Amino acid sequence: MKKIPWAIPDIGEDEFNEVKKLFDINWLSMGPQTAKFEEAMKAYVNRKYALAVNNGTTALDIAFKVLGIKPGDEIILPAMTYIATGSMVLNQGAVPVYADIDRYTFTIMPEAIEKCITSKTKAVLTMDYGGNSCDYDIIEKICRKHGLYLIVDAAQSLGGYYKNKPLGSFGDIATMSFHSAKVMTTIEGGMIFTDNDNYAEKIMIMRNQGEDPREKYKHIMLGYNARLTDMQAAIGLAQFSKIKKYLTRRAEIAQKYIKAFSQTGKIQTIKIEKDNKMAWFLFPILVENRDEIDKKINEFGVDTRRCYHLPLYKHPMFSEYSDAYCENAEYISARVINLPIFPKLTDKNIDFIIEAVANAIK
Amino acid sequence: MKKIPWAIPDIGEDEFNEVKKLFDINWLSMGPQTAKFEEAMKAYVNRKYALAVNNGTTALDIAFKVLGIKPGDEIILPAMTYIATGSMVLNQGAVPVYADIDRYTFTIMPEAIEKCITSKTKAVLTMDYGGNSCDYDIIEKICRKHGLYLIVDAAQSLGGYYKNKPLGSFGDIATMSFHSAKVMTTIEGGMIFTDNDNYAEKIMIMRNQGEDPREKYKHIMLGYNARLTDMQAAIGLAQFSKIKKYLTRRAEIAQKYIKAFSQTGKIQTIKIEKDNKMAWFLFPILVENRDEIDKKINEFGVDTRRCYHLPLYKHPMFSEYSDAYCENAEYISARVINLPIFPKLTDKNIDFIIEAVANAIK
Repeated sequence: MKKIPWAIPDIGEDEFNEVKKLFDINWLSMGPQTAKFEEAMKAYVNRKYALAVNNGTTALDIAFKVLGIKPGDEIILPAMTYIATGSMVLNQGAVPVYADIDRYTFTIMPEAIEKCITSKTKAVLTMDYGGNSCDYDIIEKICRKHGLYLIVDAAQSLGGYYKNKPLGSFGDIATMSFHSAKVMTTIEGGMIFTDNDNYAEKIMIMRNQGEDPREKYKHIMLGYNARLTDMQAAIGLAQFSKIKKYLTRRAEIAQKYIKAFSQTGKIQTIKIEKDNKMAWFLFPILVENRDEIDKKINEFGVDTRRCYHLPLYKHPMFSEYSDAYCENAEYISARVINLPIFPKLTDKNIDFIIEAVANAIK
Repeated sequence: MKKIPWAIPDIGEDEFNEVKKLFDINWLSMGPQTAKFEEAMKAYVNRKYALAVNNGTTALDIAFKVLGIKPGDEIILPAMTYIATGSMVLNQGAVPVYADIDRYTFTIMPEAIEKCITSKTKAVLTMDYGGNSCDYDIIEKICRKHGLYLIVDAAQSLGGYYKNKPLGSFGDIATMSFHSAKVMTTIEGGMIFTDNDNYAEKIMIMRNQGEDPREKYKHIMLGYNARLTDMQAAIGLAQFSKIKKYLTRRAEIAQKYIKAFSQTGKIQTIKIEKDNKMAWFLFPILVENRDEIDKKINEFGVDTRRCYHLPLYKHPMFSEYSDAYCENAEYISARVINLPIFPKLTDKNIDFIIEAVANAIK
């Protein structure tokens, strides 16, 4: 029996009241609440456009399609990330090219990106692991130099900053997820960010079946149903009103963990570059004998995850195309455990988790 | 100012109470309600598997992928249908081949299907216009004879029957939509039906990021996020408990329309083959001088649709690949108007609509 879950969303009265209002007015599909949610996110992430979609995976899929990524195009991406980062590359028929991640920050290494560039490279796709920013000054420079698109999978980034700029504000297009476990949630949901008018227009058409905004049932390009419901946007708005509180609590929990684990000498925590702010969607630790220790932590009643226990190229869907080997990704994926980090955790829960980890590594 | 909308869903206290329960127990993502909703639909449509997804377009996309439809494969489909029927063919890189529809039933003509078959044909894709069944005995025979998959876009079919068999029960795979305007709704939502164990297993894996059901974060095939939320499934369950009432009322409204319009001599209504039962998702009429008449009906305060005012091959996304011309599809798409038909319409509303149409065609 697990006593402490890995993550539970803080869904309660506020969210319920927002949803209740929609039942009262009988409007639950994509409409005014979605527009309000987009406005809120646009301002928070400091972008010209924030366009809601039904999840973060779809967001990424549409980003590639808007940029015209075609079969055979090479996309450079981090060797360790959530599956969707890579699967949506594959969904275009494009070729994922794996750049290794930093041994301490878990984010893609700019020098590894440069080594991967060929004449077929069309885009660099970054992912801010757990809300920890990539080094965008250098990555943007590389993309400009080689004429590559920068696409940011900011699924985990909300609330993080790179040198005082909010994550999600980087890239020709950035995509975000509001899945249940995220810093804030719409249960399922996503957002696409861009500053480009042309991309934004295409995204709006593509997410709504390719329909001409000026004529019902006339469809001017290949599109999808990627609409978010107003019901979900209403939950997102209620969540967003508490984002500061959520982020503060996550940072507090992280500091407690860091303080406790730094004394053990056996646990590596993630490095946050100075000037950056971590969103703390994930709290990863690296330990030797991971499987054994993870099992013990679970047995003590603490649920955990392993984000991610396989480098991308080792998943069966990629492995048939690749003989990639990225040293740091291998190192981290063999050692990573993600501990619970969510606002509803009490101080008592945190002490319990810290003790469980301490006992497990003994 | 429109007085009577084209469609409004019957979302109220029942649906709200179901959603409220989920807030009480803090479970809103894909889970027990989705499973219950699947069970209910499976029984109703008489299938071995009913698998929920986030919308009907995604359902169709996954159907093609499960059957292994590849670029260059030819898919025979009706020349007049909702865009998603065709766009999801295009999304596979497959080639849509347009079979004409019947001038009276608006469904794909078996003899037209046969003319379209080539060595590259992989599947026949049917669509039950407005809930009016195709002729499945003959279509199934054609598919068997030529070794073709039968895929049924049953987006509009719920509640319809073909010779006492529920629509959605035909085809290697059938897909359904629960979009707001449908006979019953989950706001956005869809379902995939099959009797094949192997397809069902693939669908379950594909809708959840290709993840191995036995191991978290191990992804064994290219997948998507096509999950329905429990919040939406709960709405679906509340709606489903009233399906009989909904269908009865829709049929009543249809009978009132048919009776009134049959006397004008200027209005063609849709033909329902004997032994079939129409779901009455749509109530189409065909009139000469459609644009003018439709405009007048709108001016009288009745909202309408034109499902579908373009044959599929005339949408910009298809037209560059096709010089198709289907006589009946052209005829119908130039004349069709869809009148409001939804359970919340009062008898007074219906009389008003009938009078508006009568005045418009004068």
